[in-house]
Amino acid sequence: MKETIVKVIKKVELGDPILIEGLPGVGHVGKLVAEHLVEELNAEKIIEIYSPHFPPQVLINDDFTADLVKNEVYAYKSDTKEDILIVVGDHQCVTNEGHYEITGIILDISQEYSVKRIYTLGGYGTGQLTESGTVLGAVNNTDMVEEMKGYGIEFRDNEPAGGIVGVSGLLLGMSKFVDIDAACLMGITSGYLVDPKSAQAVLSVLSKILDLEINTQALEDRAKDMERIIAKIVEMEQMQMQHDVGTDEDLRYIG
Amino acid sequence: MKETIVKVIKKVELGDPILIEGLPGVGHVGKLVAEHLVEELNAEKIIEIYSPHFPPQVLINDDFTADLVKNEVYAYKSDTKEDILIVVGDHQCVTNEGHYEITGIILDISQEYSVKRIYTLGGYGTGQLTESGTVLGAVNNTDMVEEMKGYGIEFRDNEPAGGIVGVSGLLLGMSKFVDIDAACLMGITSGYLVDPKSAQAVLSVLSKILDLEINTQALEDRAKDMERIIAKIVEMEQMQMQHDVGTDEDLRYIG
Amino acid sequence: MKETIVKVIKKVELGDPILIEGLPGVGHVGKLVAEHLVEELNAEKIIEIYSPHFPPQVLINDDFTADLVKNEVYAYKSDTKEDILIVVGDHQCVTNEGHYEITGIILDISQEYSVKRIYTLGGYGTGQLTESGTVLGAVNNTDMVEEMKGYGIEFRDNEPAGGIVGVSGLLLGMSKFVDIDAACLMGITSGYLVDPKSAQAVLSVLSKILDLEINTQALEDRAKDMERIIAKIVEMEQMQMQHDVGTDEDLRYIG
Amino acid sequence: MKETIVKVIKKVELGDPILIEGLPGVGHVGKLVAEHLVEELNAEKIIEIYSPHFPPQVLINDDFTADLVKNEVYAYKSDTKEDILIVVGDHQCVTNEGHYEITGIILDISQEYSVKRIYTLGGYGTGQLTESGTVLGAVNNTDMVEEMKGYGIEFRDNEPAGGIVGVSGLLLGMSKFVDIDAACLMGITSGYLVDPKSAQAVLSVLSKILDLEINTQALEDRAKDMERIIAKIVEMEQMQMQHDVGTDEDLRYIG
Repeated sequence: MKETIVKVIKKVELGDPILIEGLPGVGHVGKLVAEHLVEELNAEKIIEIYSPHFPPQVLINDDFTADLVKNEVYAYKSDTKEDILIVVGDHQCVTNEGHYEITGIILDISQEYSVKRIYTLGGYGTGQLTESGTVLGAVNNTDMVEEMKGYGIEFRDNEPAGGIVGVSGLLLGMSKFVDIDAACLMGITSGYLVDPKSAQAVLSVLSKILDLEINTQALEDRAKDMERIIAKIVEMEQMQMQHDVGTDEDLRYIG
Repeated sequence: MKETIVKVIKKVELGDPILIEGLPGVGHVGKLVAEHLVEELNAEKIIEIYSPHFPPQVLINDDFTADLVKNEVYAYKSDTKEDILIVVGDHQCVTNEGHYEITGIILDISQEYSVKRIYTLGGYGTGQLTESGTVLGAVNNTDMVEEMKGYGIEFRDNEPAGGIVGVSGLLLGMSKFVDIDAACLMGITSGYLVDPKSAQAVLSVLSKILDLEINTQALEDRAKDMERIIAKIVEMEQMQMQHDVGTDEDLRYIG
Repeated sequence: MKETIVKVIKKVELGDPILIEGLPGVGHVGKLVAEHLVEELNAEKIIEIYSPHFPPQVLINDDFTADLVKNEVYAYKSDTKEDILIVVGDHQCVTNEGHYEITGIILDISQEYSVKRIYTLGGYGTGQLTESGTVLGAVNNTDMVEEMKGYGIEFRDNEPAGGIVGVSGLLLGMSKFVDIDAACLMGITSGYLVDPKSAQAVLSVLSKILDLEINTQALEDRAKDMERIIAKIVEMEQMQMQHDVGTDEDLRYIG
Repeated sequence: MKETIVKVIKKVELGDPILIEGLPGVGHVGKLVAEHLVEELNAEKIIEIYSPHFPPQVLINDDFTADLVKNEVYAYKSDTKEDILIVVGDHQCVTNEGHYEITGIILDISQEYSVKRIYTLGGYGTGQLTESGTVLGAVNNTDMVEEMKGYGIEFRDNEPAGGIVGVSGLLLGMSKFVDIDAACLMGITSGYLVDPKSAQAVLSVLSKILDLEINTQALEDRAKDMERIIAKIVEMEQMQMQHDVGTDEDLRYIG
C-alpha cells in the first residue's frame, strides 16, 4: 500500500445530500458529534479510506480483531428531511501532504454525490476549564453568515486567531474551488480534555440546521461523567494550592 | 536507490507455509523469537529487502564488513510439519509511509508462496519490571480466538489500549484484504529493556502452535544475563532511595 | 490536491519587470515591505499558489470566510518607471522539498514575464534589541555589489554567517541557472519580534533602487506601536534585574 | 527543482580512478581531509549535485555571491600515480531518502568512471577530549582487512557499535551491489568539535594508501588553533570546578 485507497462498500442513491465531517481534533468535539449522529441516525457505511499517511497502526475491536486506522463515510437516507453523508475516523493524517489528499478525496465524493452543503465540526480551545455552550462559526461564502447566526452560531472578529487546522479547515478552503458552500462549527472548549458538553452544544445547533430531533442521552451521560472528572481536577488543584501556601509558611520558619 | 528493492536470493518450493514476522519493537520480543527460530531451524535466507525508508546506515559484522540496514525472509522446509517463512530485520522503517510499503511487500510474498496463516510477534509494554510469562493475542478473524486461547494466549478487553504499531500491527490489518488469517502474539514486558524472558514465553506458545520442539537454551542464557542486570538495577534503585531518605534527614537538621 | 497548484487569475502585459519577493521570515521584515508595496502601489493579484507543502490550514478573513494558506503574485504596471511583480504569502512551506518547488515556480513565472532582476527581502537577526537601520546585501552576481553599495546596502565578510534560509535564499541561488540577476536585501533586526522599523529601512533602500516615492505612513505607525512595546519590555527587564538584585541582598541576611 | 540535479561541468579521461568521499559528519574529519586533498592536489571540479533533499539554503561566498547548498565531485589526473575522484560538500541531506539517493548517484558516477576502489572518510566520536591519532576501519569485503591493517588502520570488534550513518556508511553498503571494493576510514575524535588533528591522522593513512606526499601545513595550522581553543576550554572547566568547590565550602557556613 503505497497510495491512499478509497474502498467503496456500497453505492447509494441520495438526493443532493448535506455532508458533515467530524474527525478527531481539539476536545474531540467534531468526532463526538459525528459519531453520535451515525449511531442515532443508524447511518450506513458506504466508503472506507485507508492511507499510508495515517499512523502505521491497527486498533483492537471488542471481538479482539484488529482494524487498520481509517476514515469512513456513512450515508443516511431520509424520506422527509435532508439526506446526509457523515465523515468519521479514528485519526487524522500524520503527514502534511496527507491532510490535503484526504480533503481532496472527501471533495471528490462530495461532487460524485452532488453534495449541496458541507458542515465541518470541531472544537475551539480557549485554555479555560469553564464551559460556555458557545458555537463559533466560519464559512467559505460570506452570504452564509446571516443564516448561520440565525441558528445561534457566533461570528467573532479575528477568531479563531490561528485559523483552522486539519481537514475541517481545508474542506472550508478547498470546497470553494468546486462551488460547494461550507461552514465550520466550532464548540468552545478548554482544549485539554475530551469535551462531550461542547459536543452537545454543537449537536444542538446542527439539529436546528438539519431540522432533525436527535436523542442526546448518550452525549449527556458522557458529559456528566466528564463533569465529575473536572470537579475532581479542580478540587485537586485547590488542595495543591493550599498545600503550596502551607509549604511557603513552613519555609518562613527556616529563616 | 530511490525505491525499495526486493532482492530474491533463492526460489524455494514450500507447501502452503506459515509466515512468522519478528521485527524490532517493544522489548525486542518479536525479534528475539524470530531470530532464535531462524537459528534453531537452520532456516535458509531467500529474500533481502532494502529501502530508502530504513535508517541511512550500515551495521558492522564480526568480519569488519558493513551491511546496509535491511529486512530478510528465511524459509524452513519440513518433511513432517508445517513449512515456515520467517521475516526478521535490524530496523523498522523511519518514515510513516515505509511501514505500509514493507507490510505490502510481505503480503505480496505471502500471496506468492500461498501462505495460509501469519503470526506476527511483539511485546506489550506495561511499565512494570515484574515478569509474568503472559502472552496477549489479537487476530484479524474472530473465529481464531478460541483456537488461540487453546494455546494459552490471553485475550483482554481493550488491550493493547493504544492498538498495535508498526509492521506487526499493519500485517494484521492488511492481511484481511488478501484473505489470509493472521494473529499477533504479544509477550508482556516492561518496555524498558530487551526481554528474552518474555521472548521465551512467546516462543513456548509458538512451539505449541507449530507443533515443534525448539531448543531454548540460547534464550534462557540471555534471560539469565538479563535477570542479573535487572537485579543490579533494582539494587541501585533501593540504594538511591535510602540515600534520598538520608539526605532528607540531614535536611531536617538545618531547620 | 496532491500537487502544488499555480492558479493564474489574470494575464498582464509587462515590460521586463523587476520581481520582489517578501515571504514570512526573520522579523517578518520581507513580508512587511512586500505587503506594504502591494498596498501603496495598488498592485493587482495575478497568480495564487496552493501547495500540500504549506501548513494544512485556513486563515479567517474579516468577513468570516476562510482562505487556504497560499502564496500570491501581484503585478504593478507603471507608465514612467519599472514594472514590478511582487510575491507575498501567509506562510512558507513546512517541508524541505516544498521550499525548492515554490522557488522553481517563482522562477518559471519570472522567465514567462521576462523578469530582468529579482530582489528578495528578509531580516537578519542579531539577537540584540537595538535598532540600526542597516540593510545587509548578498547577490548572485558579483558585478552587482558596487551598484548595491551605491544604494546604501552594506556587504560584510562572512555575513550572514549561516547563509540565507528559505525562498529568499533559494531564489538567489537558483536564479543563476536561468541567468537572472538577483540580490537579497536583509534588514538588521533582533530576530525576536516583528520589526516594522527594519522594514522601513529596507523599504527606503528599495525605493531608491526602484526610483519610486512610496508613502511609508502605515509602516511608521506600526513602528511606533512596536517602539512602545519594546520600551515596555526593556522597562520590565530592568525591574526584574532590580528585583533579582534585591533578592540576592535578602539572601545574604540568611547567612 | 522537484528532483535532484546532477550537473556535469566537464568530462575527463581517467584511468580506473580511486574515489574518496569526505562529506560533513562527526568532527568534520572527512570533510577536512577531502577538502584539503582537493586544494593540495589542485583537483578540478567536474560535477555539481543539487537536491531538494539538501537544506533549503544558500551559503555566502567571499565575493558576497550566494551558492545553493550542493555536493561536488573533483577529479585529479596523475602521470605517475592513481587518478582520483573526490566527493565533497557543504551539507548532507536532511531527509532520510536523500541519503540513499545521493549515494546512488555517487555510485552511478563511480561506474561511469570505472572506479576501482572507494574510500569514505569520517570521524568516530568517543566523547573524550583526548587525542589518539587512531584511524578505525570498516570494509565491504573482508579480503581488504589485512591490507588496511598494513597501513596502520585499526579494526576493533563491535566498533563503531552503532554502525556508520550517512553517505560514508551507505557507500560501503551499496558499493557491494556494483562490485566495487570500499573501505571507511574513521579518525577517532571527541565528537564535540571540528577536529583537524584527527583529520591529520586520517590524511596520513590515506597518503600511504595513495602513495602520495601531501603538504599538511594547512591542517597543522588549523590543528594548532584548535589545540589553543581546547586548552582554553579545559582551563575554564577547571576554574569552574574550583569555583564550584568554593561555593560548596561557602555553603557549609550557612549550616
